[in-house]
Amino acid sequence: MELIFSERMKNMNGTATREIFKLLSNPEIISFAGGNPAIECLPTERVKLIANDICASPDFPRVLQYGLTAGFPEFRQELCKYVETAGIYGAEMQNVLVISGGQQGIDLALKAFINPGDVILVEDPTYLAFLQLANSYEGVCKGVKANDDGLDLNDLEEKIKKYNAKMLYCVPTFSNPTGKTYSVENRKAIAELTAKYGVIVIEDDPYSKLRFKGEYVPAMKSFDKTGNVIFISSFSKIISPGNRTGVAVGAPEIIRKMEIGKQGTDLHTPNFSQMITYEYLKRGYLAPDLEKSVKIYGDKKAAMSKAIAKYMPEEFECTDPDGGLFIWGRFPEKIDVVKVFPEAIARKVAYIQGCVFFADGSGNNYIRLNYSYANTDMIEEGIKRLGDLFKEKLAE
Amino acid sequence: MELIFSERMKNMNGTATREIFKLLSNPEIISFAGGNPAIECLPTERVKLIANDICASPDFPRVLQYGLTAGFPEFRQELCKYVETAGIYGAEMQNVLVISGGQQGIDLALKAFINPGDVILVEDPTYLAFLQLANSYEGVCKGVKANDDGLDLNDLEEKIKKYNAKMLYCVPTFSNPTGKTYSVENRKAIAELTAKYGVIVIEDDPYSKLRFKGEYVPAMKSFDKTGNVIFISSFSKIISPGNRTGVAVGAPEIIRKMEIGKQGTDLHTPNFSQMITYEYLKRGYLAPDLEKSVKIYGDKKAAMSKAIAKYMPEEFECTDPDGGLFIWGRFPEKIDVVKVFPEAIARKVAYIQGCVFFADGSGNNYIRLNYSYANTDMIEEGIKRLGDLFKEKLAE
Repeated sequence: MELIFSERMKNMNGTATREIFKLLSNPEIISFAGGNPAIECLPTERVKLIANDICASPDFPRVLQYGLTAGFPEFRQELCKYVETAGIYGAEMQNVLVISGGQQGIDLALKAFINPGDVILVEDPTYLAFLQLANSYEGVCKGVKANDDGLDLNDLEEKIKKYNAKMLYCVPTFSNPTGKTYSVENRKAIAELTAKYGVIVIEDDPYSKLRFKGEYVPAMKSFDKTGNVIFISSFSKIISPGNRTGVAVGAPEIIRKMEIGKQGTDLHTPNFSQMITYEYLKRGYLAPDLEKSVKIYGDKKAAMSKAIAKYMPEEFECTDPDGGLFIWGRFPEKIDVVKVFPEAIARKVAYIQGCVFFADGSGNNYIRLNYSYANTDMIEEGIKRLGDLFKEKLAE
Repeated sequence: MELIFSERMKNMNGTATREIFKLLSNPEIISFAGGNPAIECLPTERVKLIANDICASPDFPRVLQYGLTAGFPEFRQELCKYVETAGIYGAEMQNVLVISGGQQGIDLALKAFINPGDVILVEDPTYLAFLQLANSYEGVCKGVKANDDGLDLNDLEEKIKKYNAKMLYCVPTFSNPTGKTYSVENRKAIAELTAKYGVIVIEDDPYSKLRFKGEYVPAMKSFDKTGNVIFISSFSKIISPGNRTGVAVGAPEIIRKMEIGKQGTDLHTPNFSQMITYEYLKRGYLAPDLEKSVKIYGDKKAAMSKAIAKYMPEEFECTDPDGGLFIWGRFPEKIDVVKVFPEAIARKVAYIQGCVFFADGSGNNYIRLNYSYANTDMIEEGIKRLGDLFKEKLAE
């Protein structure tokens, strides 16, 4: 039978990272391609303890039964406190929705707002899975210029007006893929500008807790006076990606619409997952664990920066992030990293091609390098392999 | 700020059952409204044992890390065996997708196939959340007549042609809301007819394992020769709804498209949830546990049928299901069960209004009664309250 898929899905293929994830089941390949947290930073013993306690609780049958779509009330209460660490004060139950990972929050926000043809502004470059997701709602992504301070405000305003933009998506802290952080002033200005034009903002925040240097910056949501910003935070990078939990914070009407969208998608986040994250937060495990984790991430990032300086061709320019998981680098334009990729795999090292992060598919001379997953020895060896390879390519 | 929601969501409100679920946090209300499995049938001790074993496994860090979108390979292998119990033989890894509950499977199938305006045929009445979900993809549901044997084949063929129908959705075993089961001949005929016209079928199967009388009937999918049937099975009613696991079985191209859709929705089903269901199946807990559960469900159903005969007005007609969770009943047309509902709540008893199950919103004289959640004493008391109430209404 000939299968006729929907318009939204007919041209959808798997995201590059997910496909590479499959490839990386080969343990010989040193991968800078994924976005996995360091395995040694996952709180294995804490989660075991919590899981055993959940099982021993008289409340355990409740964990097996259906739950509310918005999440366990006590978990949502805890989340209201949790988001204060991002500078968001005064959130109440009606402002928070438990989500099955940050990805689901983005999906539900798009579902609630985007009609086919609506323009969504994104920082250029941006999170590749967002581009795919926007595609699945037939939204049209347009890139906004960025500078060291954050988004270029003139370009943002111009494009809001030019495209009558419906939405802005950004990762203001340790952006994926660049690792950059928007300044406080830039955040304030974006919040004001989008409010002025009635643009919905998805502020995606999976990485802000992974700061190993520089100063804390409050969430853009903390400068939101009209309720146009949806803040999406994930526990994947700081507790466990396999547990699939996160939180969306927004105006009650928006959260309610996203909750209705979630009813259709998965009814509710699995109770065991919710309870694990809830107990982890409530018991105060996060702060001490983060202190250890950011030390490890800082060391790994330093190892990668050092290896880049030592092995990569001098024409290679890259970012120097204060946190998060990624370094973003640029080769001279003659290099096409998509073409080089199979050779990198043959040398047992992987990166992500920059073009997947650009709204217009440009950027074939950029790569994103993840430093969280490999250990420091592997980081040095992997960067050496890449350096040798790209030096050869530049000499061709 | 004025919020302009998407076309797909602007008229979406919560499903009736989910909203009533909130109401039922009041423990004084005897609820026949939900679709919760009996709390005493949830395998609490088994799941505790499994969870503790997962935590103690040297493989545990893998549970915390990201997983593949399609699910753990060993779980998918186990699922290929599992669906043989529904008469589906020869499934391989590429035919199965782990889903976060049956609801997600339906959502992903709609996402893969339905464009705004596409017609989806449904049995009239059908699962209310399906009608909502179809709405969220701007699909148009049209009811197909049913008889004691299953779907009316003439009406089905006529409507496939009349509407150039893209899809058929049905719950062939212990249908929600009617509790009815399609005959083997009817299943075969539906599989052939839909294949002939290239109609995609979603065969939703949450209940077939809960058979307390009558003979086993293989899934419609087992008669699928062209790959047009997507079989969706859930573990919510037989292991745990709070664990949110299920499986979709279909042609590799369809499963692949649904997998890509799932990447956007939640990346993957939480690993702990997957491992719990996997171990439960692998250890062979299901068959002996089901033997006990169906006895309990059979007793509860018998208690409800008996109470109906004793207390409900003689004008009330209802089904006599061989399994599943629901009895479906009809009052004379002068009764409007939507109007009566607040009075039922005042008397501390709840049902679901029939109209939410009809594609055209008719059916205000029907009610769905769930017998799985309440105990047999509460069933008698609740039906007595309903009987008294509706007798009064009929006498008005």
